[in-house]
Amino acid sequence: MSLRLQLAKVFLRYVGKRFLMKETDPARMNARLSSLARTFRTPALARYARSSMGEAELPVLWATTGGQAQNGVILFLHGGGYIAGTPEIYKEMLASLAGSLGCEAAIPEYRMPPDHPFPTAFDDAVTCYLELLEKGYAPDRIILGGDSAGGGLMLALLSHICVRDLPRPVCAFALSPWTDLTLSGESFTKNQHTEDFLPASRIRDSRKMYLDGAAADDPRASPLFAEFPNCPPVLLHAGGQEILLDDTLRMQDHLLGFGTEVDCRVWPDTPHVWHLMQGRLPEADEALQDIVRFAQTHLT
Amino acid sequence: MSLRLQLAKVFLRYVGKRFLMKETDPARMNARLSSLARTFRTPALARYARSSMGEAELPVLWATTGGQAQNGVILFLHGGGYIAGTPEIYKEMLASLAGSLGCEAAIPEYRMPPDHPFPTAFDDAVTCYLELLEKGYAPDRIILGGDSAGGGLMLALLSHICVRDLPRPVCAFALSPWTDLTLSGESFTKNQHTEDFLPASRIRDSRKMYLDGAAADDPRASPLFAEFPNCPPVLLHAGGQEILLDDTLRMQDHLLGFGTEVDCRVWPDTPHVWHLMQGRLPEADEALQDIVRFAQTHLT
Repeated sequence: MSLRLQLAKVFLRYVGKRFLMKETDPARMNARLSSLARTFRTPALARYARSSMGEAELPVLWATTGGQAQNGVILFLHGGGYIAGTPEIYKEMLASLAGSLGCEAAIPEYRMPPDHPFPTAFDDAVTCYLELLEKGYAPDRIILGGDSAGGGLMLALLSHICVRDLPRPVCAFALSPWTDLTLSGESFTKNQHTEDFLPASRIRDSRKMYLDGAAADDPRASPLFAEFPNCPPVLLHAGGQEILLDDTLRMQDHLLGFGTEVDCRVWPDTPHVWHLMQGRLPEADEALQDIVRFAQTHLT
Repeated sequence: MSLRLQLAKVFLRYVGKRFLMKETDPARMNARLSSLARTFRTPALARYARSSMGEAELPVLWATTGGQAQNGVILFLHGGGYIAGTPEIYKEMLASLAGSLGCEAAIPEYRMPPDHPFPTAFDDAVTCYLELLEKGYAPDRIILGGDSAGGGLMLALLSHICVRDLPRPVCAFALSPWTDLTLSGESFTKNQHTEDFLPASRIRDSRKMYLDGAAADDPRASPLFAEFPNCPPVLLHAGGQEILLDDTLRMQDHLLGFGTEVDCRVWPDTPHVWHLMQGRLPEADEALQDIVRFAQTHLT
């Protein structure tokens, strides 16, 4: 464990986690997350652009580095418990990742509660994927990605693509994904004290706000209960002390049951979605490089 | 799945698995495995050497490619159900792997039943590791590896190193490892029909010959029940249809419980230790490249 990671963990636990324990308002959460995001490292030659997708004109933030982005697109669904988070917070990480692959990343601002509870976020994710196909992106040049709640949302989209037999993306990656809104994972209780960032209470709240009465085991909300026929390769990353660790490990088992090629990598000490600290933490850079390695294997 | 893999699977199932179902004699098994090994691809510039280790003067086969082997050593424990298998069968794969890392590989001929049942193989593995240290290899330049029974043996050695707090190797990899001689994995029964190569009956036989009355859950025989304090990073590979799949997945869980950094990759269709078909199967080359990538991350 690097010294930087040790410092980051102390900061997350005593500042981030304590803040999240008290803060229940999504707008104030976003303000704090956005101010945290200002410490993220901007990769060299980062380029951003904005467009919109679908009838609802969802804002989409496009990110990459350098001049060439000929290798395809990463459709990335951001985290934030389905109630917070913005594409803006993720733009540096995605610019870095997409640039390394010679791709561009599209980060849609899917709609959220209170105005748009479940299943709007899911419907928006499907809309964005279909629009990429319509725009002429070859499916074997589309990579799906997501983190935390966005990782679960991405896997729900992936299941939908497989079940409806839509053109499949080339591969997918999920970072510390939240795959089970029934919260039945053993780590959800067992790791409450080792978890550096996410308070269990906040997860229960955001589940309630998002589902708004819908069933927690709906496969569009909890891809752990979804079907994945002929699923493309999936990469899963998690930290070994996260309360969501079992959401990754059980997802691995579940995908293997459908004959999916699964690469699951667990870092023993890293906090929830540490990838965001790219350029600052060696463990974050190592994890991003692992995504690049995985995607490159399948893009070629 | 490549066409070559499909052909290899048909061959293994209708020739390899049928042969193993009938053949109970380790010497005849070895003869057949050695004749199969003659079809393995010899990597360019392969170099082999022979020495011995320990008081028992265990023969050791050294393998690499090219001229330079400055980056360290892979101590590789070969498979064969603890009753068959030879370093000779593994020399091409290890030459390829070690050469790509600028290392050399040491493949000891550990002793086996009927003359030397459990725990001789384990004791020999410990002897070889200690001798590498005595010869002056820096532990952070030693990589442990093993496949099938040898993967279990390697993990048992790794546990011994961690528990005794001996100088730890830099990392370890296990290919389709057999980690549980109690045979309690669900896949052991569930995957009997999808398994391409290993008949369950032959595994039960070799367990009996090896243990010779010792307890199947002895941690030196079944590392799934061993302790791994402060364990270096471990890479696990398996095929999704193997009867030993759960020996990999449960080992992942077990190692994570000790805070180990674990990278677990499951290919949906590959047969038991398909890595041996390097240079012939794209899936084998991809898997070897994954070991190189993993080891390079930790060697640097």
